[in-house]
Amino acid sequence: VAKIVTLTTDFGVRDAYVASMKGTMARIDPDIRFIDITNEIGPQDVMGAAFVLRTTLPHFPAGTVHLVVVDPGVGTDRRAVALRHGEQRFVGPDNGLFSLVLDGQTPDELVELNKTQYWRTTAPSRTFQGRDVFAPVAAHLASGRSLRDVGTPVDELHRLQWALPISDDQGIQGWVVHVDHYGNCITNIHRDNFESSRRGRSLKCFAGNGILFDVYNTYGDVAPGEPLVLFDSSDLLEVAVNAGNASELFDIRKGDTVNLIFVD
Amino acid sequence: VAKIVTLTTDFGVRDAYVASMKGTMARIDPDIRFIDITNEIGPQDVMGAAFVLRTTLPHFPAGTVHLVVVDPGVGTDRRAVALRHGEQRFVGPDNGLFSLVLDGQTPDELVELNKTQYWRTTAPSRTFQGRDVFAPVAAHLASGRSLRDVGTPVDELHRLQWALPISDDQGIQGWVVHVDHYGNCITNIHRDNFESSRRGRSLKCFAGNGILFDVYNTYGDVAPGEPLVLFDSSDLLEVAVNAGNASELFDIRKGDTVNLIFVD
Amino acid sequence: VAKIVTLTTDFGVRDAYVASMKGTMARIDPDIRFIDITNEIGPQDVMGAAFVLRTTLPHFPAGTVHLVVVDPGVGTDRRAVALRHGEQRFVGPDNGLFSLVLDGQTPDELVELNKTQYWRTTAPSRTFQGRDVFAPVAAHLASGRSLRDVGTPVDELHRLQWALPISDDQGIQGWVVHVDHYGNCITNIHRDNFESSRRGRSLKCFAGNGILFDVYNTYGDVAPGEPLVLFDSSDLLEVAVNAGNASELFDIRKGDTVNLIFVD
Repeated sequence: VAKIVTLTTDFGVRDAYVASMKGTMARIDPDIRFIDITNEIGPQDVMGAAFVLRTTLPHFPAGTVHLVVVDPGVGTDRRAVALRHGEQRFVGPDNGLFSLVLDGQTPDELVELNKTQYWRTTAPSRTFQGRDVFAPVAAHLASGRSLRDVGTPVDELHRLQWALPISDDQGIQGWVVHVDHYGNCITNIHRDNFESSRRGRSLKCFAGNGILFDVYNTYGDVAPGEPLVLFDSSDLLEVAVNAGNASELFDIRKGDTVNLIFVD
Repeated sequence: VAKIVTLTTDFGVRDAYVASMKGTMARIDPDIRFIDITNEIGPQDVMGAAFVLRTTLPHFPAGTVHLVVVDPGVGTDRRAVALRHGEQRFVGPDNGLFSLVLDGQTPDELVELNKTQYWRTTAPSRTFQGRDVFAPVAAHLASGRSLRDVGTPVDELHRLQWALPISDDQGIQGWVVHVDHYGNCITNIHRDNFESSRRGRSLKCFAGNGILFDVYNTYGDVAPGEPLVLFDSSDLLEVAVNAGNASELFDIRKGDTVNLIFVD
Repeated sequence: VAKIVTLTTDFGVRDAYVASMKGTMARIDPDIRFIDITNEIGPQDVMGAAFVLRTTLPHFPAGTVHLVVVDPGVGTDRRAVALRHGEQRFVGPDNGLFSLVLDGQTPDELVELNKTQYWRTTAPSRTFQGRDVFAPVAAHLASGRSLRDVGTPVDELHRLQWALPISDDQGIQGWVVHVDHYGNCITNIHRDNFESSRRGRSLKCFAGNGILFDVYNTYGDVAPGEPLVLFDSSDLLEVAVNAGNASELFDIRKGDTVNLIFVD
């Protein structure tokens, strides 16, 4: 069985924080293999981390342990947890991030981390529990321990909820939940929601200072430099520019509203 | 035999695109090991990716699979290919990048990817074929499949050509093909070309708003802050500043001309 | 035994320099596993690299080889060395970095690299000895060779010294030695030094254009946006802002002084 631990953090890559977690895990089990999901989550951006993690989860093998440390409450009394949902396990602070990743579903197993023998030290740093609590627990899980070994069952995750788009007969109002590396502006409007509301009508999409029409299949369906609306690889509606940057062209930022009007 | 897949993309590291490809490959064969060449190629910069990949290729072991996804035409009818050249294999879109990497040579084997059983899905995303087509094929190749397994032989790569320097009796005009992390400005003028044209004469090098003289062996041959011309570790002529940034100092950008004049 | 090589460089991740070192090592021993400490050290910042490496060292397994290439003197006559200190080994240029990492201690073993059969080539590049000398030696060490195999014993490391804080009865003057990804400003004032000087008195901390009071245990001890003084996960005094950026708020940069005044 492969022992894979993924990392999702807001630690950046200029400091040694990520390396200290990997070293700590390698000391526990040198056969663990690390895959960085990203260490470039915005500082304390719990929702941004949940978005990025959620899109990539389905692609990881059964048994993967996801170490997720975006932890505005480090050292306070927020709980430290580990959970299993289907064949994937997660370790990190219980600040709502995992409830967003699970979209409100109850995890199949959930424990509070309180077995200090699986920590790096019984007196963990108040500012770097990624190194002292979460990484060692992730390593022990990847290495064969069960959730029951590393913690005590608890009932509920701390809850946060995704803002959902609002629909009426005329259209849909959604939000930009992520601006990616290319400047593509990804909304919370799912293809299924879009299709059931549209009912064959034509589209006007108001996003930032732009108005766009029609839905395309891929960037190359319009000329380079031209904007378009399409569905991304997770079936979320996206405003993009072929070979360009929609966020800059239309001055669209994360959190901005996107309004779709359906016209007969 | 080691199963190594390298990655060269313009996906950046803030999103989960790279992780989704790695997860997809780990599902196919958890023993594959990943080495990022870089995921920071400029968006859609096919030529930049070819330059970076070409300099590092000779250093990888036989059997390495290079997954290369810089794909301005994703979802259009550009071909998806895999190829072998010597002991190295490559997977990605056929947009000219591979012909640049091979410097116009015909690959030893070339197939068009059309065996959908080796894809993540028979209906791949129109915007993320890295995840749905190229990564799974790379994983199957690293895991033991042959090129004939994953595609059908075709004759020719899509061709792009490197711009070559222009020489006459008085000197050489070249171009800056890459500005590296330090601001070193790397040209397309090879040491062999330079030496055969120079014939013992002294050098004036016009680059950006600077004029440089002589060729040195390493940065420390001049004082800190002083500019110099030297040959880089791939034997290409480079304009640099010892402990400084030549791109900023001389306002030199990728694509700018560099003129060498040989003086008796 | 795990074969782990860590990398600490100022090479950045846009070019293929890091990949060329990893490829070179994989050719020598495909079972070596790589952990990047960081490749984002500031260009030629030997002291910055030593700081980052030193904080993470205790977390790596015995037998780890640390490849450290921040090399302002590449190609000049500075020595190339490998050393062992306790259970950790190091390879890189002897420019003072290792003496900083060891805090002036004499390494348990120290050799000058002069056995060219362990290099990539007997005529290494004058500008990229990371690829041609240091990476191959690191790979051979990880793969089972001893220090005596790859070099000849020498006595002393090139010495650099950390600037130490200055204390008197009224307080401590220290320096900001690192500004991390979050804008936390980490000083060279250790918790032990602080406690022995403070002797129960209250604190005024002058840092940049700010004055701070008291010492807290973690960021969440103050409201979001509020500044605080605390000890980081290496027990160094740090000026921070909860959910904010102290470097920006107080205009504090690396190298700035921080003055602590103890008041009855």
